[in-house]
Amino acid sequence: MPPLSPDAAIAALNWRYAVKKFDPTKKIPAGTWAALEQSLVLSPSSYGLQPWKFFVVDTPAVREQLLPHSWGQRQIVDADKLVVFALKTGMAPADADRLVARTVQLRGVPAEKLEGYRQMMAGSLSKTPPDQLDVWMSRQVFIALGVFLTTAAVLGVDACPMEGFVPEKYDEVLGLGAKGYAARVVATAGYRAADDHYAGLKKVRYEPGEVIERI
Amino acid sequence: MPPLSPDAAIAALNWRYAVKKFDPTKKIPAGTWAALEQSLVLSPSSYGLQPWKFFVVDTPAVREQLLPHSWGQRQIVDADKLVVFALKTGMAPADADRLVARTVQLRGVPAEKLEGYRQMMAGSLSKTPPDQLDVWMSRQVFIALGVFLTTAAVLGVDACPMEGFVPEKYDEVLGLGAKGYAARVVATAGYRAADDHYAGLKKVRYEPGEVIERI
Repeated sequence: MPPLSPDAAIAALNWRYAVKKFDPTKKIPAGTWAALEQSLVLSPSSYGLQPWKFFVVDTPAVREQLLPHSWGQRQIVDADKLVVFALKTGMAPADADRLVARTVQLRGVPAEKLEGYRQMMAGSLSKTPPDQLDVWMSRQVFIALGVFLTTAAVLGVDACPMEGFVPEKYDEVLGLGAKGYAARVVATAGYRAADDHYAGLKKVRYEPGEVIERI
Repeated sequence: MPPLSPDAAIAALNWRYAVKKFDPTKKIPAGTWAALEQSLVLSPSSYGLQPWKFFVVDTPAVREQLLPHSWGQRQIVDADKLVVFALKTGMAPADADRLVARTVQLRGVPAEKLEGYRQMMAGSLSKTPPDQLDVWMSRQVFIALGVFLTTAAVLGVDACPMEGFVPEKYDEVLGLGAKGYAARVVATAGYRAADDHYAGLKKVRYEPGEVIERI
């Protein structure tokens, strides 16, 4: 038996929505949050390169500092959790070496057997112009966002993905640039407030026939 | 009770991997596939703009045509399902109008009440230079990929996300350009072959402490 039935999966995805108002008193249980962090760790990426870091901002004062750089959206301070999805900047052949070293470590396979794989990845990373590399690698960060939001939904945790923030200011406040990262997107997570009237609104999606086409 | 326990969610995400060899005889049950298509329809996106279309390539001859443009990866022809995640090109203020019209239709709210929202979206779309708009909107397509892969995992369906293909050739073979779309990423779905030895390999991920940082 699969973990969820089709009906249960769709019910979870229909239940989720971009929460506008979190209940600041409600906390995600530790085991549930650990699973959500693990969903980030397990997210797939091109070649498995994991060109990212997920900054979980727990310090209230720091979240207050981020608020004016987030169009004043209160989720930034009210949600139990705030995750800044950041790109690892300047991905380079050394990142292919790092991944191969990790593979050798975890799978016990000799490095020589992975040399062709390493060269292919390193070649892709060195041949791609920096701006295109940013485009390519940033997209991976958004896969992780989709994984996180879907995992939250099946765990019964509310969330709100947010692109309405000033990435450069986030980088500054959180010191991401110095660490070699750049904020790309944000997700808040917690539990919806009882009076978030967005919870009751019909989800706005185009007809399946408009977004799915069979060939 | 949430649909899944933290342990069950993580087990599903650990169970999933990028399938290298599908069992071409195994088909996804219709109800399960309907749920997977619905997960695409329900994917979140910036402003809810849904700048995408998902092309489900069912015709074997077309899939054969795509094979040489996919580095010969057999998943393209062996997996039960092949989904081409495509960007709607040339997103413009008209797309804000379209979304507002759909919102009016579904929520029964008067268009005047959404005029500020429409103007904000239309402004974002018209102010963003075309190359940046492509970057921004393409990222949304990758959120949908993350939603799809995670939903597949909790439904017990195997999948393989694929960036190793020639988007321009896909656009040509599938006639996407003429329809106003551009291929961005691909996912195949079905069931792993009993002898796909990748299924038994340890998943290669960095230590949680390397990809998650608390601030």
